[in-house]
Amino acid sequence: MVKMVIAVRKDLEMGKGKIAAQVAHAAVSCALISMKKNKKIFSEWLSEGQKKVVIKVDGLQEIYKLNEICRDAGIITQIITDAGYTQIMPGTVTCIGIGPDEDEILDKITGAYHLL
Amino acid sequence: MVKMVIAVRKDLEMGKGKIAAQVAHAAVSCALISMKKNKKIFSEWLSEGQKKVVIKVDGLQEIYKLNEICRDAGIITQIITDAGYTQIMPGTVTCIGIGPDEDEILDKITGAYHLL
Repeated sequence: MVKMVIAVRKDLEMGKGKIAAQVAHAAVSCALISMKKNKKIFSEWLSEGQKKVVIKVDGLQEIYKLNEICRDAGIITQIITDAGYTQIMPGTVTCIGIGPDEDEILDKITGAYHLL
Repeated sequence: MVKMVIAVRKDLEMGKGKIAAQVAHAAVSCALISMKKNKKIFSEWLSEGQKKVVIKVDGLQEIYKLNEICRDAGIITQIITDAGYTQIMPGTVTCIGIGPDEDEILDKITGAYHLL
């Protein structure tokens, strides 16, 4: 099975609609990259129902740490920065999209984090 | 300006992570259709930062009503049904993705709804 993981900062004051829009931004961005760079995984992900897991991280440093680990492992990532008209400062990093990629590969990296 | 609107049912007991995953599912699905059927609007949406607005609706009937109005107006929609392993019953309709399309066109249809 193949999934996408989106990790959201829990140290920001975002309402659920704001969080949903940020996570959706990450998902669309990762999907579009995956479609070009990782066709086989992408079509598996789509045909399996485009599974997404939304987890929470303490703050910005964990977003950067996940980004580094994934890049080193050749996994697609997209760090999302909010346009910031409401709730938080413009340019704030809100979440990171990871994958889609194989469950086992992503579980080693993100498996210890809690669901949002 | 061009945007996507995602309308979420507020009558379901979904946590914020669950809502985010459903909204992301709608956004990815609408983006993929738009990319094929509505190339100009899609590339405008991307280049403008893929704006998304997440609104709430009372329940299933409003999802169907929005779907009908949008279909009649030639606007892309995707009704999202949850795979349902957690929180809600499998097969439950959770949200609808609308667009991307011109602000003015969507505002006439969804402008009266409140943000989630």
